[in-house]
Amino acid sequence: MVVGHVDGDGPHLLFYGHYDVQPVDPLELWDSPPFEPKLEDTPKGQVIRGRGSSDDKGQLMTFVEACRAWRDVNGTLPCKITIFFEGEEESGSPSLVPFMEQNADELRADIALICDTGLFQSKTPAIVTMLRGMVTEELTITGPKVDLHSGFFGGLAMNPIRALSGILADLHDSTGRVTIPGFYDGIPELTDEVRAQWEGLNFDWQDFLGSVGLSQPAGEQGRMPLEMIWSRPTAEVNGIWGGYTGDGFKTVLPAQAHAKISFRLVEGQDPDTIRDAFRGFVQARLPDDCSVDFKAHGGSAASVMETSDPAFEAARQALSDEWPDEAAYVGCGGSIPIAGHFQSILGMNAMLIGFGKDDDAIHSPNEKYDLESFHKGMRSWARILDALSKE
Amino acid sequence: MVVGHVDGDGPHLLFYGHYDVQPVDPLELWDSPPFEPKLEDTPKGQVIRGRGSSDDKGQLMTFVEACRAWRDVNGTLPCKITIFFEGEEESGSPSLVPFMEQNADELRADIALICDTGLFQSKTPAIVTMLRGMVTEELTITGPKVDLHSGFFGGLAMNPIRALSGILADLHDSTGRVTIPGFYDGIPELTDEVRAQWEGLNFDWQDFLGSVGLSQPAGEQGRMPLEMIWSRPTAEVNGIWGGYTGDGFKTVLPAQAHAKISFRLVEGQDPDTIRDAFRGFVQARLPDDCSVDFKAHGGSAASVMETSDPAFEAARQALSDEWPDEAAYVGCGGSIPIAGHFQSILGMNAMLIGFGKDDDAIHSPNEKYDLESFHKGMRSWARILDALSKE
Repeated sequence: MVVGHVDGDGPHLLFYGHYDVQPVDPLELWDSPPFEPKLEDTPKGQVIRGRGSSDDKGQLMTFVEACRAWRDVNGTLPCKITIFFEGEEESGSPSLVPFMEQNADELRADIALICDTGLFQSKTPAIVTMLRGMVTEELTITGPKVDLHSGFFGGLAMNPIRALSGILADLHDSTGRVTIPGFYDGIPELTDEVRAQWEGLNFDWQDFLGSVGLSQPAGEQGRMPLEMIWSRPTAEVNGIWGGYTGDGFKTVLPAQAHAKISFRLVEGQDPDTIRDAFRGFVQARLPDDCSVDFKAHGGSAASVMETSDPAFEAARQALSDEWPDEAAYVGCGGSIPIAGHFQSILGMNAMLIGFGKDDDAIHSPNEKYDLESFHKGMRSWARILDALSKE
Repeated sequence: MVVGHVDGDGPHLLFYGHYDVQPVDPLELWDSPPFEPKLEDTPKGQVIRGRGSSDDKGQLMTFVEACRAWRDVNGTLPCKITIFFEGEEESGSPSLVPFMEQNADELRADIALICDTGLFQSKTPAIVTMLRGMVTEELTITGPKVDLHSGFFGGLAMNPIRALSGILADLHDSTGRVTIPGFYDGIPELTDEVRAQWEGLNFDWQDFLGSVGLSQPAGEQGRMPLEMIWSRPTAEVNGIWGGYTGDGFKTVLPAQAHAKISFRLVEGQDPDTIRDAFRGFVQARLPDDCSVDFKAHGGSAASVMETSDPAFEAARQALSDEWPDEAAYVGCGGSIPIAGHFQSILGMNAMLIGFGKDDDAIHSPNEKYDLESFHKGMRSWARILDALSKE
């Protein structure tokens, strides 16, 4: 963690970004050295190429450079600024919560600004107002106590892959709803205001899915595609394995089968309750002669920002002044736990504003950040500092 | 392949065994060098310890030593003997069929004897009269064209693990029957005679399942446990994998999910027909935005021996004279393709007689062969040679 303070007039802002990055492997797929950032001309314009250019070193620097420019021109900053940089974000932030708890007084400000998200579309800046939470579970189903020969035992002995497949197949009904009892309890419907905002975004889901080779929304029937990724919860199998998975064939009837499962949570869902409900769902479906072990990997609730805070509208206007399109309030289907920590540990509202693009290849070889994102990002923060200083 | 001939009076017998063995790994689990066979005292009696002692060097030698002893005593053998030893059995026998086709005239005899099976129970010798066949398939289901982030796409994009789980879960109904259309077409019911024989075996399925930590037959409801492993077909997932399967957690929504599936076949089922029916079953259940690739790994039909050949009853009587319990006609749930090849390529009936025990740990560390199996095995063959020479 790096924490620094810069005095200034006006309100007290905390800015968060992270300077650690994902590993570069597979290195052989990089067209240039990942840690030697360079400007590169591409058909779509100039980009900064390098690991972390978008996630999150480049984004973090948009704020730093905005402050530097402001001070170069004016001599002082228009707000009191606390800088909070993390170096463990890509490793699951093991020290973050204890650090925030131990340094709460030093970190607390009027509002937190987080730059680790993207534009809504390439010309449309966005403020994230809701983030999904997450529960992750690993389960192991055990049938026979040793691997068996499927010739000698096949047909008589329970195969734990069969048990696991049955349970996982049961997780969704034919309309795409998750069937775990109580899963949707307490989830609010969108307000008319938010629904109208989202409909106004004209989200091109055909293009969004088409870019990854898909054509059909696979979530709950009757929901808007944006609801499916922003405001509705999910159950996804992120990994499955069991038996023989190498080259060729082995007619083994394995002792165990495994899966890693995650649930994206929304407002109204409690991580512990969902975890318990899932475990009960599995237990209720275990065939004779099978047992199950669960391993909890993590859990965090969804975050919903208090957009009634006038800072939101001020920032939205400042972004709209900088970019071609008006800035949008959007959801984010991913989990950015820091936003929830600012709320729960420090009692602060947080605004997530970022300038990444869908094609930045974060976490992947040849990561880039558009020079436009960098320039307009810096200018956006200068406008936001100005706007918030007047609140 | 090793082929040799020994002249003798009486009928012409072909004897088959294999001298190649499984790899020894993991070597560190062996208590003595795997290729230095040794006699060892155990609480259950003396055993020959070493790789191949049971599968199949030791079994092969029971026949060789029976012939040697007979000749030492009588000067000649009572039957004309063709010895056929294979050295690729544990590697899928890639040369076997072409070799048998090219050398059919040299190999053809009145009947084939195969020593690569076990006793039915430790005091009950057995002749295998039916073997299951097998079809093996590998399938890959592809959803998105790249791995996706489950935060950004989860809920909207199809997850191929969900598709695969649904298809595999559908393979069996709640009564344990395989649901592939036509899967059971043409399968005969057991004759009253065979059913009575099997009921008379008093198979202790509780003990059989209990030895591997199971308690309930998991096959088709209403069938005898012996039917489940000998005379009824199966569908088993032998391997499954997809997404992130390492330590920790990655919230990936994978592009692909994979499974290896085998079908044990019985009389009346054609491997190609079953493979086609399975592929149709999968295609019919593919969700939108998923595609499937199939990879055939192999296929062989079941074998049913012609037990009306008087050699069977002669051999069964000879075995019964040597062992404490009367010899049984049994099925075998595994696939021993050589028996089918003798029938289809050479037009010969085959008798599978062996003396292995369930606890021999074939293919595993510390493989052993009971000295009793070796001694009584040699004596059994001597009795069988005598009996067949009088047919």
